[in-house]
Amino acid sequence: MRMVDLIIKKRDGHELTDQEIAFWIKGYTDGSIPDYQSSAMNMAIFYKGMNNREIATLTDCMEHSGEVIDLSAIKGIKVDKHSTGGVGDKTSLVLGPMVAACGAKLAKMSGRGLGHTGGTLDKLESIPNLCVRKTKEEMIDQVNKIGIAIIGQTQSLVPADKKLYALRDVTGTVESIPLIAASVMSKKLASGTDAIILDVTVGEGAFMKNMDSARTLAHTMVNIGKSLKRDTIAVLSDMSEPLGNAVGNSLEVKEVIAALHGHGPKDLMELCYTSGSIMLVQAKICKSREEARNKLEEVIQNGAAFNKFVEMVEAQNGDISYILNPEKFEVSKNVIELRAEKDGYIKEINALGIGEAAMKLGAGRETLEDIIDMSAGIVLAHKVGDFVQKGDLLCTAYTNKEDVDNVLEEIVNAYEFSDDPVWALPVIREIIS
Amino acid sequence: MRMVDLIIKKRDGHELTDQEIAFWIKGYTDGSIPDYQSSAMNMAIFYKGMNNREIATLTDCMEHSGEVIDLSAIKGIKVDKHSTGGVGDKTSLVLGPMVAACGAKLAKMSGRGLGHTGGTLDKLESIPNLCVRKTKEEMIDQVNKIGIAIIGQTQSLVPADKKLYALRDVTGTVESIPLIAASVMSKKLASGTDAIILDVTVGEGAFMKNMDSARTLAHTMVNIGKSLKRDTIAVLSDMSEPLGNAVGNSLEVKEVIAALHGHGPKDLMELCYTSGSIMLVQAKICKSREEARNKLEEVIQNGAAFNKFVEMVEAQNGDISYILNPEKFEVSKNVIELRAEKDGYIKEINALGIGEAAMKLGAGRETLEDIIDMSAGIVLAHKVGDFVQKGDLLCTAYTNKEDVDNVLEEIVNAYEFSDDPVWALPVIREIIS
Repeated sequence: MRMVDLIIKKRDGHELTDQEIAFWIKGYTDGSIPDYQSSAMNMAIFYKGMNNREIATLTDCMEHSGEVIDLSAIKGIKVDKHSTGGVGDKTSLVLGPMVAACGAKLAKMSGRGLGHTGGTLDKLESIPNLCVRKTKEEMIDQVNKIGIAIIGQTQSLVPADKKLYALRDVTGTVESIPLIAASVMSKKLASGTDAIILDVTVGEGAFMKNMDSARTLAHTMVNIGKSLKRDTIAVLSDMSEPLGNAVGNSLEVKEVIAALHGHGPKDLMELCYTSGSIMLVQAKICKSREEARNKLEEVIQNGAAFNKFVEMVEAQNGDISYILNPEKFEVSKNVIELRAEKDGYIKEINALGIGEAAMKLGAGRETLEDIIDMSAGIVLAHKVGDFVQKGDLLCTAYTNKEDVDNVLEEIVNAYEFSDDPVWALPVIREIIS
Repeated sequence: MRMVDLIIKKRDGHELTDQEIAFWIKGYTDGSIPDYQSSAMNMAIFYKGMNNREIATLTDCMEHSGEVIDLSAIKGIKVDKHSTGGVGDKTSLVLGPMVAACGAKLAKMSGRGLGHTGGTLDKLESIPNLCVRKTKEEMIDQVNKIGIAIIGQTQSLVPADKKLYALRDVTGTVESIPLIAASVMSKKLASGTDAIILDVTVGEGAFMKNMDSARTLAHTMVNIGKSLKRDTIAVLSDMSEPLGNAVGNSLEVKEVIAALHGHGPKDLMELCYTSGSIMLVQAKICKSREEARNKLEEVIQNGAAFNKFVEMVEAQNGDISYILNPEKFEVSKNVIELRAEKDGYIKEINALGIGEAAMKLGAGRETLEDIIDMSAGIVLAHKVGDFVQKGDLLCTAYTNKEDVDNVLEEIVNAYEFSDDPVWALPVIREIIS
């Protein structure tokens, strides 16, 4: 078998066999197939796509390109959650403790963020001393004890994806649904979970800019899950404005703490309740989503979810005094309030614009070497659909940088106003199973 | 400027600016842009194409990626010829001496063959002691003296094309008209000629399988020539059956000698007369193609073309006793005659089938390291349209290999017969200028 023949086959729109896909992924992982052949194949897949069988096989080959975590030492059905990412997305940190407080088992391996703001790991690390580098034995032990662990991916997990993703990033093939789907699902499957809930974000602040492509990606990933015998459900959620109010690492952790105390922003909570109730049914803890939702509301009201978060932080060596007294989190040197210049309804808060502005304030990385300023970011005072009067607070920018006038202008430019009432899109757009 | 942004731009079907194309080719040549980015760009160009301006700029950048030969020391208009290749294509060796005998100046740099049979250089080297490694000063000197030289490309010519072609070969992007056109034309332009005739072959044994794609390639190359101020004309020639009768290096040289003596196969001679008369008009030696054709027929009849070939072989240190006594060429150990199994008209002699069979008999290279058996190959006794009776000779296979039964079967399979009369396609399909 020659790689060039497989490239030509895909280039001309033909299906690759399971053996051919396995040959590619094995060869690419062990270095016998060079980057330049994989990049040509990726571009051919970008144009010609893959059918469900090909994508499932690709996922399976990528999953088995490295270590596959065995979670059988954890009793019960293990559930996991993945989001395709967005601005202000702190869902895992709220949802995880909620479902764990209801008895679900969540052994989650997360990545770091590049662009906008930090990833889940970066947000967690804004809690002093918190450790995300745990062995899989430590992770399993922690989940058995308290039901939840959120740690960094081990280096040995899905090496094919690590190489392919880095290659796609520099060769213009990130935006390919088969490749995105296989990348996401191979990581989830390799981390050993039984059931998967996918949060597919859609809108300006997400990978998928419109409902059609988001729906296609969701169906593709759900099909992969089914082919590979995992219970997989996708929630399509709106990412045209940022999720919740806070954007930036410790700012988001403070919002997580408030949310677990029952004071979360409406959109964030709705997403957590919807996803959480699906997860509790997947975990066979509840018979219906209604029953599950009641249970989730209960653990927020009675403090069990908050306590679970404290337990998790403690188990991962974090300083829980910050969780118990969030005012301990360091505040940026510069706190700048942006106010409405006239009366009107907020028609748009462009998520991408806010995300990029937050990055420039220090909250995200432009390159993997950049160091994140944990205290930097933006907190919205109002969301789309709200009416504001001239002089009302729109949002607050936090930064340790000086000379951020350009960034403040970008933030203002992310807003659009209307004289007529505006209805915000519901955060849950569709559920695909 | 970042290469990934240029890839995405082309991927999404947009035009690249001249600066962007120059950035790519310069960076790829000097190694600052890696293979994996160029291969993704090539695949995007495969699907999205390039317009005439982009292709002319690409050609220009490739031409100037290395040395550009200055032929101004040769008096008169320099003409050059390029064929997109085929099976049994020995045109340059017949046509070159013909036009040189009429006074044209031909300083030709050729490549080696990969696949089917050898390239023009390999065929020339089947003449004992003949040297194709000459400096450009030696080439210029030889053309000034006798009007013709056919030598190997210098290493410093079009380094961008050398890298890009090798990359395309292993990444499934050979069959892209903009990339083929820029590759051919950059080499021709860098070798310093004033006028160019392109032989664009079409059919089973050629790159271009049908008239539409051949026509597109021809128009593309003629447009490049015009943009870059060179007189460029393309002849579309049939390559559904092999050109002439001989396929294989010294077998073809023997056919060249016969042709220069006036005993050439009809299709080969028609192609040489048509191309040659265009070249003589380009060189301003003749006013019309009719006048030129008469002159070309004259130099065949009076032996001037044959004498020019002998002069060239002598100037390049070849042993002319082989040209004067072609029976001196070594004959393969095994000479196998294949005969018709029943009466009928020859409907097809699949050029690709014959070419690959000849390669397997030893006449071509599968990898660049392979050594060519100069005496191996196939000589056709009849061509498409001929009527054969059971037992008539179809062709003769020459090889020093044993156990070639499979190859002989492939040769037989390249033939198709018909009970009804068959008309062969004319060798000249179209002229594009």
